[in-house]
Amino acid sequence: MCRRLNIKMNQSIQTNQLNPYAIQLCTLGRWIAQRQWLPAGSGLFSVRTSEHSALFTAPDKDKNELSPADLFSYDWTRQNQSDTAIAIHQFLYQQSPQHKVILQTHGLQATVFSRLIKADQHLFVGYELQNVVAVSEPQRSCCPLAILDPQATELTLQELHQRFERGTLAHAFLIRGHGLYVWGDTIDNAKRHLEAWQFLIGCELERIKASCHFN
Amino acid sequence: MCRRLNIKMNQSIQTNQLNPYAIQLCTLGRWIAQRQWLPAGSGLFSVRTSEHSALFTAPDKDKNELSPADLFSYDWTRQNQSDTAIAIHQFLYQQSPQHKVILQTHGLQATVFSRLIKADQHLFVGYELQNVVAVSEPQRSCCPLAILDPQATELTLQELHQRFERGTLAHAFLIRGHGLYVWGDTIDNAKRHLEAWQFLIGCELERIKASCHFN
Amino acid sequence: MCRRLNIKMNQSIQTNQLNPYAIQLCTLGRWIAQRQWLPAGSGLFSVRTSEHSALFTAPDKDKNELSPADLFSYDWTRQNQSDTAIAIHQFLYQQSPQHKVILQTHGLQATVFSRLIKADQHLFVGYELQNVVAVSEPQRSCCPLAILDPQATELTLQELHQRFERGTLAHAFLIRGHGLYVWGDTIDNAKRHLEAWQFLIGCELERIKASCHFN
Amino acid sequence: MCRRLNIKMNQSIQTNQLNPYAIQLCTLGRWIAQRQWLPAGSGLFSVRTSEHSALFTAPDKDKNELSPADLFSYDWTRQNQSDTAIAIHQFLYQQSPQHKVILQTHGLQATVFSRLIKADQHLFVGYELQNVVAVSEPQRSCCPLAILDPQATELTLQELHQRFERGTLAHAFLIRGHGLYVWGDTIDNAKRHLEAWQFLIGCELERIKASCHFN
Repeated sequence: MCRRLNIKMNQSIQTNQLNPYAIQLCTLGRWIAQRQWLPAGSGLFSVRTSEHSALFTAPDKDKNELSPADLFSYDWTRQNQSDTAIAIHQFLYQQSPQHKVILQTHGLQATVFSRLIKADQHLFVGYELQNVVAVSEPQRSCCPLAILDPQATELTLQELHQRFERGTLAHAFLIRGHGLYVWGDTIDNAKRHLEAWQFLIGCELERIKASCHFN
Repeated sequence: MCRRLNIKMNQSIQTNQLNPYAIQLCTLGRWIAQRQWLPAGSGLFSVRTSEHSALFTAPDKDKNELSPADLFSYDWTRQNQSDTAIAIHQFLYQQSPQHKVILQTHGLQATVFSRLIKADQHLFVGYELQNVVAVSEPQRSCCPLAILDPQATELTLQELHQRFERGTLAHAFLIRGHGLYVWGDTIDNAKRHLEAWQFLIGCELERIKASCHFN
Repeated sequence: MCRRLNIKMNQSIQTNQLNPYAIQLCTLGRWIAQRQWLPAGSGLFSVRTSEHSALFTAPDKDKNELSPADLFSYDWTRQNQSDTAIAIHQFLYQQSPQHKVILQTHGLQATVFSRLIKADQHLFVGYELQNVVAVSEPQRSCCPLAILDPQATELTLQELHQRFERGTLAHAFLIRGHGLYVWGDTIDNAKRHLEAWQFLIGCELERIKASCHFN
Repeated sequence: MCRRLNIKMNQSIQTNQLNPYAIQLCTLGRWIAQRQWLPAGSGLFSVRTSEHSALFTAPDKDKNELSPADLFSYDWTRQNQSDTAIAIHQFLYQQSPQHKVILQTHGLQATVFSRLIKADQHLFVGYELQNVVAVSEPQRSCCPLAILDPQATELTLQELHQRFERGTLAHAFLIRGHGLYVWGDTIDNAKRHLEAWQFLIGCELERIKASCHFN
């Protein structure tokens, strides 16, 4: 059995190394890690490979050193997932075939922001970069960022489901103290959504800190 | 027609690749992008090529990957411009033949500062680096940074016109939440004005945040 | 005698250059220095080489330029240590054979945090990255970071001894204004503990700064 | 005369390129510029070449691109200096033969700090890194940083003279809004003093900002 597992692993490594999405995801991983949005090996990325499967980054892997061999394939029709972060990725893939790349990151500013805001969402108003993440015309002028409390996986998925129904997710949400999730229909768009949200969150956090003086 | 367009694009790419200003602008683009003043492909640069034309960066282009082939030529005697950012560049070129390079950036601190200050300008006093951006002797000791609200293109241009008449622009202005514009008579001077204003804005923002304690 | 010393030094240099832990420690030194957690040559690293000896970094050495030749071996059964920082490393090695790598750093945020918190420890609650540093199940949800005042070496060691007895150390402690100590059973784990604590401290410091506005 | 000047300049360039201090100063220039303590070509460095002469960096030169050819020699027995920054360097060289390298920088945090503190000096207490800059035993536990207002060159030099007499300069002083001056008896020590002061100033500025919440 050990030999069969080795063969399977080698096949998986070879397959991933030839997969252009796997290579792009690793390149993006290094780009994100260099911005220090993935401290101490945190964060989880995935890229869809079929209607019901995706390639995931190995847990705790330093994304500065990510290579295709560090990705594993996960098919949700065959496995029952207990890990909350993976279950959230699976849920997002099941919401829409347009969800093709999902990135969970642990940036310092996003983490602080998620703790600071007590409401279940924050509305961004007056930033030109809202255009990058808006999913509807109204979101261009008033763009919500959902903030969920960490809780049992099932409850988190229920809450996300309701937010999707109400159309209050703009390619992203925060789980308090547990990271920022963003997604897109391509690796480039997921990267743009991540960069835009990190910028918007960073701006709003600075604005709150500087507002001490004015209010 | 498709073939003619291809030929025209190829000519444009070849021309730009031989244009030393195009190459310098791309080098500057990478320098600015590395400071993270152009999140998610934001920002617009241009360099004058004649009395009534300039080379512009393609919209949404990641400036870390800018090459001369990503620039397009725009002649304002032949086209009617609806995009606000391009119209502002055109207006600045028309104000003075000394305006040869224009940079719009989206730095986090400039964005926050533009939101924090409610007045239509902010006066900088006591910084040695005011010397870098001052356009008159009095501005060396008291240097204004204009802050405009985002509005219809025509109104923005009218307001800029009035500010130029009153001499209250020191190589730069902010549009609230929509970026910092700087210009210069060379690429090097535009870069220096950008760097000096980012420094001055960053200082003033920190000073405001720290002043909580003192006032 | 001068010749014997030279031979001994050359042997030590050659030995260290072949020691894989020495090479890894130098690589880690550059990684930490690039994050600017070791200003002006500050900080002290060591890696255990036997039950009662370890390799230490030379004092005041810029860790950006660390090479195995800059490490010296120290055996605490043969020498009596007066330097506080080295004595703390020795104490930590004597507490447990699982302590194999110790890093003292001087990050700006950790230094400020250690001055700001007046209590003898700070409890971290609500951060997913507590999982990285927790030494017990309860620390996953409420993780203490001990903060000691700088004092005579003997008193510092006594206080550390009491904290170990009470189980209130999660792979790290701060000495007010005198740096952050972290440790691990491998170089990779010590690095992860360092990175996680720098993140947690940075988050909490930002949260305190932003809380002005809310409380 | 034009030819003689050319010959003299060429000689100067050749001499500087062979001068090991000139090369080290340029290397240090790039290191400092990469930390963004020299925005928009600001800052002035010099290295002593004799009892009454030194090599200076060219004004407004981007220190990221500093080469020995950008240094010029200045002999204060032959010239009368009107530039305030150069006059301050000259004064420091005349104070002590141990002053061999002088660095003026424009870091954002040092600039903000110099504006925030209204007193004519700030006392640093409780930081281990005070040891790096202290010039006397008492300064190890309480280390002053002098802060002067910008004023006529003659008055600045008089005030500096008084501070030296009183022994209240710890290898550095600030001129409000006009930069930080540090010095040392070697390039390495000047660099260490710069790095330590930037750290100490950065810590104190953060401490002040975070103290809003506590006081």
